Amino acid sequence: MIKAGIIGSTGYAGAELVRLLAQHPEAQVVWYGSRSYIDRKYADVYRNMFQIVDAVCMDDDMDALAEAVDVIFTATPQGLCASLVSEEILSKVKIVDLSADFRLKDVAVYEKWYGISHKSPQFIEEAVYGLCEINREQVKQARLVANPGCYTTCSILTAYPLVKEGLIDPSTLIIDAKSGTSGAGRGAKVNNLFCEVNENIKAYGVASHRHTPEIEEQLGYAAGEQFTISFTPHLVPMNRGILATEYASLKAGVTKEMVAAAYDQYYANEPFVRVSHDSQPVETRWVEGSNYVDISYVIDPRTNRIIMMGAIDNLVKGAAGQAVQNMNLLFGLPETEGLTQPPMFP
Amino acid sequence: MIKAGIIGSTGYAGAELVRLLAQHPEAQVVWYGSRSYIDRKYADVYRNMFQIVDAVCMDDDMDALAEAVDVIFTATPQGLCASLVSEEILSKVKIVDLSADFRLKDVAVYEKWYGISHKSPQFIEEAVYGLCEINREQVKQARLVANPGCYTTCSILTAYPLVKEGLIDPSTLIIDAKSGTSGAGRGAKVNNLFCEVNENIKAYGVASHRHTPEIEEQLGYAAGEQFTISFTPHLVPMNRGILATEYASLKAGVTKEMVAAAYDQYYANEPFVRVSHDSQPVETRWVEGSNYVDISYVIDPRTNRIIMMGAIDNLVKGAAGQAVQNMNLLFGLPETEGLTQPPMFP
Amino acid sequence: MIKAGIIGSTGYAGAELVRLLAQHPEAQVVWYGSRSYIDRKYADVYRNMFQIVDAVCMDDDMDALAEAVDVIFTATPQGLCASLVSEEILSKVKIVDLSADFRLKDVAVYEKWYGISHKSPQFIEEAVYGLCEINREQVKQARLVANPGCYTTCSILTAYPLVKEGLIDPSTLIIDAKSGTSGAGRGAKVNNLFCEVNENIKAYGVASHRHTPEIEEQLGYAAGEQFTISFTPHLVPMNRGILATEYASLKAGVTKEMVAAAYDQYYANEPFVRVSHDSQPVETRWVEGSNYVDISYVIDPRTNRIIMMGAIDNLVKGAAGQAVQNMNLLFGLPETEGLTQPPMFP
Amino acid sequence: MIKAGIIGSTGYAGAELVRLLAQHPEAQVVWYGSRSYIDRKYADVYRNMFQIVDAVCMDDDMDALAEAVDVIFTATPQGLCASLVSEEILSKVKIVDLSADFRLKDVAVYEKWYGISHKSPQFIEEAVYGLCEINREQVKQARLVANPGCYTTCSILTAYPLVKEGLIDPSTLIIDAKSGTSGAGRGAKVNNLFCEVNENIKAYGVASHRHTPEIEEQLGYAAGEQFTISFTPHLVPMNRGILATEYASLKAGVTKEMVAAAYDQYYANEPFVRVSHDSQPVETRWVEGSNYVDISYVIDPRTNRIIMMGAIDNLVKGAAGQAVQNMNLLFGLPETEGLTQPPMFP
Repeated sequence: MIKAGIIGSTGYAGAELVRLLAQHPEAQVVWYGSRSYIDRKYADVYRNMFQIVDAVCMDDDMDALAEAVDVIFTATPQGLCASLVSEEILSKVKIVDLSADFRLKDVAVYEKWYGISHKSPQFIEEAVYGLCEINREQVKQARLVANPGCYTTCSILTAYPLVKEGLIDPSTLIIDAKSGTSGAGRGAKVNNLFCEVNENIKAYGVASHRHTPEIEEQLGYAAGEQFTISFTPHLVPMNRGILATEYASLKAGVTKEMVAAAYDQYYANEPFVRVSHDSQPVETRWVEGSNYVDISYVIDPRTNRIIMMGAIDNLVKGAAGQAVQNMNLLFGLPETEGLTQPPMFP
Repeated sequence: MIKAGIIGSTGYAGAELVRLLAQHPEAQVVWYGSRSYIDRKYADVYRNMFQIVDAVCMDDDMDALAEAVDVIFTATPQGLCASLVSEEILSKVKIVDLSADFRLKDVAVYEKWYGISHKSPQFIEEAVYGLCEINREQVKQARLVANPGCYTTCSILTAYPLVKEGLIDPSTLIIDAKSGTSGAGRGAKVNNLFCEVNENIKAYGVASHRHTPEIEEQLGYAAGEQFTISFTPHLVPMNRGILATEYASLKAGVTKEMVAAAYDQYYANEPFVRVSHDSQPVETRWVEGSNYVDISYVIDPRTNRIIMMGAIDNLVKGAAGQAVQNMNLLFGLPETEGLTQPPMFP
Repeated sequence: MIKAGIIGSTGYAGAELVRLLAQHPEAQVVWYGSRSYIDRKYADVYRNMFQIVDAVCMDDDMDALAEAVDVIFTATPQGLCASLVSEEILSKVKIVDLSADFRLKDVAVYEKWYGISHKSPQFIEEAVYGLCEINREQVKQARLVANPGCYTTCSILTAYPLVKEGLIDPSTLIIDAKSGTSGAGRGAKVNNLFCEVNENIKAYGVASHRHTPEIEEQLGYAAGEQFTISFTPHLVPMNRGILATEYASLKAGVTKEMVAAAYDQYYANEPFVRVSHDSQPVETRWVEGSNYVDISYVIDPRTNRIIMMGAIDNLVKGAAGQAVQNMNLLFGLPETEGLTQPPMFP
Repeated sequence: MIKAGIIGSTGYAGAELVRLLAQHPEAQVVWYGSRSYIDRKYADVYRNMFQIVDAVCMDDDMDALAEAVDVIFTATPQGLCASLVSEEILSKVKIVDLSADFRLKDVAVYEKWYGISHKSPQFIEEAVYGLCEINREQVKQARLVANPGCYTTCSILTAYPLVKEGLIDPSTLIIDAKSGTSGAGRGAKVNNLFCEVNENIKAYGVASHRHTPEIEEQLGYAAGEQFTISFTPHLVPMNRGILATEYASLKAGVTKEMVAAAYDQYYANEPFVRVSHDSQPVETRWVEGSNYVDISYVIDPRTNRIIMMGAIDNLVKGAAGQAVQNMNLLFGLPETEGLTQPPMFP
């Protein structure tokens, strides 16, 4: 039985880890870290866990954690994991970092987009970008996994086969993404109050959102060249779900069959990627609560563009589910262990 | 492995059965009945089941079903199950009826409140009212289980120990209930359109809702006497969840300790009933997606009333989850089998 | 043209005053008070007022306000108005207080339920409870109007004619109320975040909500005797609206005709009260954005109870609209001036 | 006083016309057409109009209407207006058609995208496309006004100054639009049920939505050349509002100042267009219930694209409000008459 510790277990991503690991046959949470709620019963903060979790919240003591657990999940704001990690800790325990600290290989890019200095640049090279469908083999060997961002997971996987196979012109890629509000976290901010979010849709972080360089870097590896994209996130009045609508110009001569073949080549055997070739748009409701990525696409002969659509649950495949998927890889378990619940609707 | 057939598998309760049984280690659905979608792929109707369920929808052939399966779930409008059941069918297969056909023991009451004539009154006596926490032993012996209504499950369990122990005056009982919109079903009606339900709350079926006699009958057994109640359902702009706020006058001399002891006596060992004695109101979000019933209460010395509150997920404990719980009892499985997922939040 | 000042203009009630007064032909806001946003453009806080309101937010300087305006609206937390009012101020300006400071005539009741000491008990006697339909004539003569609470406005008006005419037993009155989330205000609290409120319903303040004594006092005047009620508010995932479902036992011999006649006697000529005698439940969506109170009722012969239902927009008739209605009375304007917009649906 | 008749008064757009005209000082509805509800009281269908509108619904008798009213609004499905209009009718009465029948100048394009044959092509040339900000002078002289679509109004106005002034390359224009659910109408369809729309976002009509050629035609006039665009609508779980996020490549040498100047040139004096130059994204909540179009934009030097954002209330500026604005122009009234209510928030 894998012993897991969570730093930041009372945020939405942390709480989703608690929910998923409660159903995992080979892992259990033994450390519920939460600076804000130290010594309070976890189930008093998240009443869904009443009579399920009996533990109290604990401080973020990385050294004690390294002794007590096999894997640490850091579901914390940017900068915290980088400030706590050390060679000694990594020698004792695996870390899956749900923050952005180790996602970008170029520390200068990190410091520019996040506006903070990186406290542990020496581990950036070693860290593996934990997008399992792409970096599966590297994750298996890793000590430190950088769990991808929610928007990035959805955005990258939706376009990856076409970029990798050179079927689209990557410099034309425009990603218009829409997210449920749990992606904004559980901080008490006026902007996230019910009455401010409900009955509204807006863009935010236009041309400046931090997931942009992460998408560019990973798709750049696939393309074998660097390029810039337009990425615009939007806030939707719903709890969960990300939809990415992606536009790109098809390269000359590319057919529907070639597009379908590329998707099948990369995803036909992926347990969590479901590609539909029937032009029916994906919807976030069909993946809610699950680790699935749903993908479909439409080719528009009038503009010679392809419109790709991807949907995930931002808290599962976009955060906690992918973290568990990475944990499964790190410990040699079946990759789908504990992640096979069908989506819940309605 | 128990083979299950569902009549009405494309309604919300039927679809929830599909979701729950997909996670059940000892049962599998082999017949997806749906008159409206015969020969269509089930996963085309419910895309959450894409690449999970490969079957096509089938007609409601009770005789063929009785040969093919071990248990039939009828998740259909009132009257259908009563029109299809027969001694021959019951000799071959167990039936869990999610409709109201066999819930009321007095056929005249049924016909008055539902406005239809009962097609199989000869099975009413035999049918067991499948509120597992109360009728567990009878269910184990049954052939035909009347799965309780959503409002009734929540309303009855919230008040049951106090009625049974005579701590409240049952004739003062007023139940003000609130339900998510999935309780209204998947029929295409103007009243259930998004724009009609969203940003609104209303009562409906005031002093005339069909779950009223069901609550009165079951609580009447507990009280050992007949009485009438006020029951008012409300429609809430959310997908899932029922909250019952119940008011009753305490009998003379009843203390908080006596109330707490009564709840503990009946529910302390119940796996799906979670009683909180700390006066903190229950919330539907804390049971979403799960089979739990959450209960709490406040005693008001100013009015000498107790305000009891109960919360369930109307599609799980209020329909499909309780049906699976009944199935587990019918087949000698652990009662919680396949039903241990924690509630999902947010 | 009446010059109006608002203290607390950036809360939801204050902002609704700004919206309503912008459409009022005889009044204009000349002072946008907001401690939190001093010197910021009002339209930067509420972008709906972009290019409509050009003013900046100002401090809460009561003395300066008294010189600058004809009427002050205090849309602030409890205690502030009581701490600022004085004989000198009241000699210069009318005050409509949207807080609870002057609603209760018994200062001990106020201090017990609100947990703060009253800073100006000497004005309690003079203050007029501004429920226009009941205290119209007194309001016209007032200097200081205590604008009623949102729940209380809805709860009182729904039951008033029957209490006043002695048709129900007031000691049996149970009010189960449901409110949209704007009633919780614009403070940055975790409990009011979108993801915490959405897809949920819960009771709160059970047997302890501060609007209870206000309802008891006002209905007590109508009954000519004191009594206690049960009042339970609930939080609904919608922006606006309050629904009160009220239960009471009819006195012996009371008929439907007597109930209808009582409602007509008090409300047939009221411009903002719409009573329906057809048993169709009222809905909050039908009053959204307007100053209307919609009322309907069902008599249940089985229990001899009447179920009364009332619906308002909590920000309009429950706060800002009623405040404008009171202003109209204070200044001798037609009572409906500026308040005749039909409800907005959907 | 202008006498108005509405064909289709019980759809959402028709009902919004009723609401707006109820507040219009120079117009009144004298004919509430509704095939579905003939002889039923209008206020029984839309209870917000209880005690405000006393009329009953009437049939769609165009000849009788032409005698009885000064202006007819057709808020009906495509094809109806074209099948009813005639020279005789147009000689007696003005028509504002809220359907698509007279929006496209090329009947072949209409028949291809809408899949129906046009019944009155002889009036296409005469009809004026009623986007008031662009065709104001022509509307004043018209008999037959084609009221623009909701998506098109928002999409065109957001990009118009930059296309007209040649600051962007129109062939790169990609419009990713998001709409509230009232845009889907009041038809009883499973897809529009609360539980199907709530907690979900999806694209629909990808590369095939009928508003596409309308946008292309109108922006083509502005550009002085024909081009194709990508247009993708999405369904958002909210009642009202359209947000258009529009991407285009800036032409060489175009600066922020040039963009700002172009917007100011066309919109600085427009009463209903509010442009913000501060890069703050527009939001649908800030225009709800009003006739405003809010526009802002961000220039991204990394990609040399501009991201333009526009927000409207789909039922007001996107339908009924613009229809009233057109009526005002047709009858020589101030263009803002009856349309000056500020947006309602929350």
